[in-house]
Amino acid sequence: MRTLYHYPLHPGCRAVRLCFAEKKLKLREVEINPWEPDDKFLSLSIEDVPPILTDVTEIGTVTIVGSQTLCEYADEASTRNLLMPSNRHKRAEVRRLCTWFGQRFDHEVNALIFPEKLETVLLGGAPDPEALREGRAALREHLDYMSWLLSLRDGLAGPAYTLADIIAAAHLSCLDYLDEVPWREVPAVQEWYQTIKSRPSFRPFLQDRVPGIRPPRHYSDLDF
Amino acid sequence: MRTLYHYPLHPGCRAVRLCFAEKKLKLREVEINPWEPDDKFLSLSIEDVPPILTDVTEIGTVTIVGSQTLCEYADEASTRNLLMPSNRHKRAEVRRLCTWFGQRFDHEVNALIFPEKLETVLLGGAPDPEALREGRAALREHLDYMSWLLSLRDGLAGPAYTLADIIAAAHLSCLDYLDEVPWREVPAVQEWYQTIKSRPSFRPFLQDRVPGIRPPRHYSDLDF
Repeated sequence: MRTLYHYPLHPGCRAVRLCFAEKKLKLREVEINPWEPDDKFLSLSIEDVPPILTDVTEIGTVTIVGSQTLCEYADEASTRNLLMPSNRHKRAEVRRLCTWFGQRFDHEVNALIFPEKLETVLLGGAPDPEALREGRAALREHLDYMSWLLSLRDGLAGPAYTLADIIAAAHLSCLDYLDEVPWREVPAVQEWYQTIKSRPSFRPFLQDRVPGIRPPRHYSDLDF
Repeated sequence: MRTLYHYPLHPGCRAVRLCFAEKKLKLREVEINPWEPDDKFLSLSIEDVPPILTDVTEIGTVTIVGSQTLCEYADEASTRNLLMPSNRHKRAEVRRLCTWFGQRFDHEVNALIFPEKLETVLLGGAPDPEALREGRAALREHLDYMSWLLSLRDGLAGPAYTLADIIAAAHLSCLDYLDEVPWREVPAVQEWYQTIKSRPSFRPFLQDRVPGIRPPRHYSDLDF
C-alpha cells in the first residue's frame, strides 16, 4: 500500500499524483499542512517537506522523498505508460526540463507568486506588489520559452508525452488555480495544457479546493 | 567526443567529472569562469551555468545540462562500474541524497560559505562573518547527518559505492579546498572521504588550483 503525504496546491506534489495516475498505480493520499506539519508527518523522514511517500514493498516499508525522485520511482514501477524516453540522450533532456521547473521556475516564479497569493490569504499579511510583478514577469518569460519549445516539438521534451510535460503542467495548474496564467497571450501553451488537462489523470486536480481561495471559473473547465 | 564546460571549485561540476572518470569515459574538460562566462559558453544552452556537456552521438551533437542529469547520463552510458543500484527503491534513496546535496546542502552551506571564502577573494569585497558562522554551523549539522548514515551502512546510500557518495564527496572536496571541513570532529566522515579520495577517479581534483587561493596542505594528502 502506498501513501502519499501531499499538499493540493504544491506543484511537486501534483506532479507525483499525476505520475501515479498515469501509471495506473493505486495511491492513498493524505493531505498535510506544509506550514504546520503534524508529528506523524515529521516522523516520516529527516526531510520535512512534501511530497513524501511510504510504500510497503518486498524489502519492507520504504520512504521515498522528493518530487522528481518520486516521479521516476513511479515510472520505474512498471513498463506500462512509460513517462521517460528509452533513449538516454532524450532522457537527459527530460531530466533537464524537470530540474528547470523544479528549481529555476520554482525560484523565479513560485517563490514570488505563491507567498503573495496563497500565504497572505491563508496565513495573513499584505501582498507585496513588487514581488508579484517580478514573479509575473518571470512567468511570462518561462511561458515564452515553453511556446518556443512547443514550436519545435509536440511535447515539451520531444514528440512523446513525458515527465517533463507532467512536471510543467503540475506547476501551471497551481498557478492557474490562483488565476495567474495569461493563457490568451500564449496560445501554444494553452493548447498543450488543454490536451493534458483533458487526460483522466488530471481530473482529480479540477476538484481540488483550498479553503479560503476560490479558483477562477475556467480552472475546472476543460474547454477554457 | 565529449566536452565538459566546468569550473574546478564547483561541486556539481566535480561530481560530473568524478562520474565520467569512474565510468572510464573520456572527457575533454574546458574551464569556464562562472562570473564572466564567454559567448561560446553562453551559446551552448539557455541554461547559463556549468556543468554543461556537449556530446557527439549517433543522433547528432547533444547538449546535456545539470549535475545530477549529467551524472545519470554518464552512468547510463555503459554497464561498467554502475553508480546507481539496480533496485528501484534503493535508486530512489540515492536520488534523494543527490537532491539533498544538490539543493539543501547547497542552499544551507555552499550559498553561505562560497561567497565569503571564494568570491570575496576572486571578486573583491569583505567576508561577512555572520554568513560564514551560519554556513559552518549548517555544515556541521550535515556532517553529523552523514556520520549517522555511515553508522548504518558502508556507503551513504547503502552498502555499495553510489552516485550519492560521489555527489557528497564532490561537495566536501570543494569545501576542503577552502579548509572548511572539521575532519577531526567527524571521524566516520573522514574515514569515508579518505577511501573515496584514494580512488584514481579523485586524483585530478588534488591537482586543481584556483589562482589566488591556496588549498591547505592536507588537501592533496591522501593520508590527511
